[in-house]
Amino acid sequence: MISPPLRTAAGLLTICCVSMVISSASALGRRPLTRAGSVAFAAVPLRPAPAPLLPSALRGGSPRLSNVPGEAVSRIGGVWGAATGRLASLLNLRMTKKDDREVESYGHRFEDLSTSRDGVIKDIAKLARESKHTNKGKKVAIVGSGNFASALVPIVGKNCARLDEFQDQVNMWVFEEQVEGRNLSEIINEEHENVKYLPGIKFPENVVAVPDVKKACEGANLLIFCIPHQFLGGICAQVKEVAAPGCIAVSLIKGVEFDDNGIVLISQMLSKQLGGMDVSVLMGANLAWEIAKGSFCETTVGYKKAENGATIQRLFDDPLFRVGVVQDVPGVEACGALKNVVALGAGFCDGLDLGDNSKGAIIRIGLMEMKRFIQSHFPGVKDETFFQSCGVADLIVTCYGGRNRRCAEAFVRAKGEKTFEDLEQELLNGQKLQGTPCAEEIFRILEAEGDLDDYPLFQSIYRIAFCGAPPESMIAAVACYGSTSDICEIPEELPTADSIVGSEI
Amino acid sequence: MISPPLRTAAGLLTICCVSMVISSASALGRRPLTRAGSVAFAAVPLRPAPAPLLPSALRGGSPRLSNVPGEAVSRIGGVWGAATGRLASLLNLRMTKKDDREVESYGHRFEDLSTSRDGVIKDIAKLARESKHTNKGKKVAIVGSGNFASALVPIVGKNCARLDEFQDQVNMWVFEEQVEGRNLSEIINEEHENVKYLPGIKFPENVVAVPDVKKACEGANLLIFCIPHQFLGGICAQVKEVAAPGCIAVSLIKGVEFDDNGIVLISQMLSKQLGGMDVSVLMGANLAWEIAKGSFCETTVGYKKAENGATIQRLFDDPLFRVGVVQDVPGVEACGALKNVVALGAGFCDGLDLGDNSKGAIIRIGLMEMKRFIQSHFPGVKDETFFQSCGVADLIVTCYGGRNRRCAEAFVRAKGEKTFEDLEQELLNGQKLQGTPCAEEIFRILEAEGDLDDYPLFQSIYRIAFCGAPPESMIAAVACYGSTSDICEIPEELPTADSIVGSEI
Repeated sequence: MISPPLRTAAGLLTICCVSMVISSASALGRRPLTRAGSVAFAAVPLRPAPAPLLPSALRGGSPRLSNVPGEAVSRIGGVWGAATGRLASLLNLRMTKKDDREVESYGHRFEDLSTSRDGVIKDIAKLARESKHTNKGKKVAIVGSGNFASALVPIVGKNCARLDEFQDQVNMWVFEEQVEGRNLSEIINEEHENVKYLPGIKFPENVVAVPDVKKACEGANLLIFCIPHQFLGGICAQVKEVAAPGCIAVSLIKGVEFDDNGIVLISQMLSKQLGGMDVSVLMGANLAWEIAKGSFCETTVGYKKAENGATIQRLFDDPLFRVGVVQDVPGVEACGALKNVVALGAGFCDGLDLGDNSKGAIIRIGLMEMKRFIQSHFPGVKDETFFQSCGVADLIVTCYGGRNRRCAEAFVRAKGEKTFEDLEQELLNGQKLQGTPCAEEIFRILEAEGDLDDYPLFQSIYRIAFCGAPPESMIAAVACYGSTSDICEIPEELPTADSIVGSEI
Repeated sequence: MISPPLRTAAGLLTICCVSMVISSASALGRRPLTRAGSVAFAAVPLRPAPAPLLPSALRGGSPRLSNVPGEAVSRIGGVWGAATGRLASLLNLRMTKKDDREVESYGHRFEDLSTSRDGVIKDIAKLARESKHTNKGKKVAIVGSGNFASALVPIVGKNCARLDEFQDQVNMWVFEEQVEGRNLSEIINEEHENVKYLPGIKFPENVVAVPDVKKACEGANLLIFCIPHQFLGGICAQVKEVAAPGCIAVSLIKGVEFDDNGIVLISQMLSKQLGGMDVSVLMGANLAWEIAKGSFCETTVGYKKAENGATIQRLFDDPLFRVGVVQDVPGVEACGALKNVVALGAGFCDGLDLGDNSKGAIIRIGLMEMKRFIQSHFPGVKDETFFQSCGVADLIVTCYGGRNRRCAEAFVRAKGEKTFEDLEQELLNGQKLQGTPCAEEIFRILEAEGDLDDYPLFQSIYRIAFCGAPPESMIAAVACYGSTSDICEIPEELPTADSIVGSEI
């Protein structure tokens, strides 16, 4: 593979050919070149391309280009898509690589062009020289290389190779560390595997690890942020200097921040630190290892500008990783943070051995409190968002399988002997809980706003986690919830909500 | 306890006393009778009431009625509420027993009445004679005595005793069977326990088992239906003859029926068979045994007339069984049926060991298809309904803990060796699956309407359950789902949706 700097330097040397692949819809590549029934692009450089990227028909300069299966041509077209894209626009053709059926529909336009291979190459080489090295594909860079980023790299890499609108090479900024005496970035580039954070999962070869964040993001048109948000400040300052004008971003960072004015979304922080860049978000029921294994899942992209949402959808969409979109950045992002608070409640349920009814009720009440909180703090957030993967699906998965749930269950079973800090160290192997700090901040906001009474579950989870309230009090708190009925007797064996209030620190 | 027939016969013999309980709000019952600071009703019959129902202060005719705690007085007032309700109306007082603070607010009205105990009793006895035996409370009857009905009987019985608007005695129609040589109805009435269907759970003594359905429902103002819907035809004809004019009903029967015109709700069938009676429904994340044990849960009442919805809410509401209400009978009821279809999909996921992401996605997609189907077949069904216990919570519980999920998992693990009929017999101990027949009927409706393409999950579940499609095909089917993206490649190792279509019976 030729890296972009080299390709840029090579500039005019890159001459492409459009190979006319003649075929019927049902039997691609069976007809002779002289019958221009359909066409697919296959752009090849004059420098020898790495052999595995070229089907044998092209490697030896075979006169029977028609033997190249449509799919293979399409893939090569993907790798060299930027140049052929320019050519296509000069030819007033819609550039496409995704599907030879679609390419076929443009085939008739070639009927008045040369029909011999040499003729085609000559025509296209001339057009390529005229087009210079203008490159219309978006350059994609990934800021981060942990578990989640590494799980998505195979999809992003594949789509960049497959789709014209993206450049083939995807840079991934890797925080350089030594793994068994070697640089992690070198290991990734040689073995195409992040041996430290996602061993066993191969990356496509068009994903390149770059240890310098400025180099990784130089000229980027689309940035994928996937690092702990504590590091954003230093990183964003560098990225901002080098990103291309009009660059857009998508944040995969789950969590929210809080300042004196209340809740601050990571996407808002990012946008600010990147000089007002348009930032979308991607959140969903997405446990990293399951994505990496290729288990089917869904995700949700929340966008502000429809055009950017659609671009990001195409960048991540895959048959086994379906991307839904909703024009609602705060709704999607806040769901990703608040579900962790609800998962603590689900974990308390499990620790108390309360059974399915109670857990179902706690999850539903949690969803209602999430919805109430988010819609009151971010006017315009849609009900629809809560039906997306980022809403109900992520909540379910987190309440059954997530780390917040697990630690909360252990917290109850420890009967006051262990704090959440203890359990984090004991159970999470260096990872951090997001539910507990979020529960604390949400409590502070609600307290400051005088709205605690509208959030009995959130309030109760905070008091159990931080104020020594007994876990059973969660049920006492929600027993008074939501009903218009006249009764709200707390069963005797449970502590009352009032007694819990008294235990606040 | 005196049964209603006896009480009716006793008629004017029932003389009630209003006992003025003098108290301050903070220290109930500490002040002498002569200071009418607040008042609570305690209606006692001249016949001796069963000792446990009477606090010691009343049992001995103690002059220090003020020693009776407000709550206890309130409870006694509940048992004899019908008579005192009539008295209250004669006195132009709002009858209340729920809270002595509320009663207190009416206390001043008694200031011009007798302030001695004997004087109060004399006044009230006179009013009682005038009121004859008019009884404003609604007579509640339960049609059914299985597991679920028996789980709810303690709550219904308690609320009927507690609230004026209901008569104390609750009749429960029991299909008579012999249990160890005795009639089940007799066992229930003597031991206050349904030893056959819910052993170990005590019923309140005001719940009376009646083996004759006409006697059980005679004069009923509110009917609770909780029997397999196959039996409704014969039962409804008898019930219709004896129910009081203006009687309303609530159906706890989960499931739907289908006729040539499509889906028929049980509530619609019931209403028709009962001569147009107003029928509400109660559905939610309500596993019977967990309700019976007193695990916290929620439920949803779907109503048509607000007044009836509120009555039914009060009848079932309890601190550990919270009743939400929504003016949407079809939405609530159809959720209760369709969730079982989705649970089959969740079970297939489990059988395939697909992990949390996939299961979360299948549940979410299932919720979307439920919503789409219900809203297109019952215009007016609200989005809100799907956020209630009958919607998302019941779906979650069913997809993790229910019998449809369990059999579907076993179906996959059996690798084609067992049918759902086999598994029903093997795993369900005589209970029936509701998901499989519902999946079949839904498929027929969608097929007839030409809408199958909008329901890839429902379609796929049907084909796996009935047409021998491989379970993996469910993922292939939903992989094409909902995305606006251009790709829908089915991974090679999974069968394609097209190949599944070919396998239809």
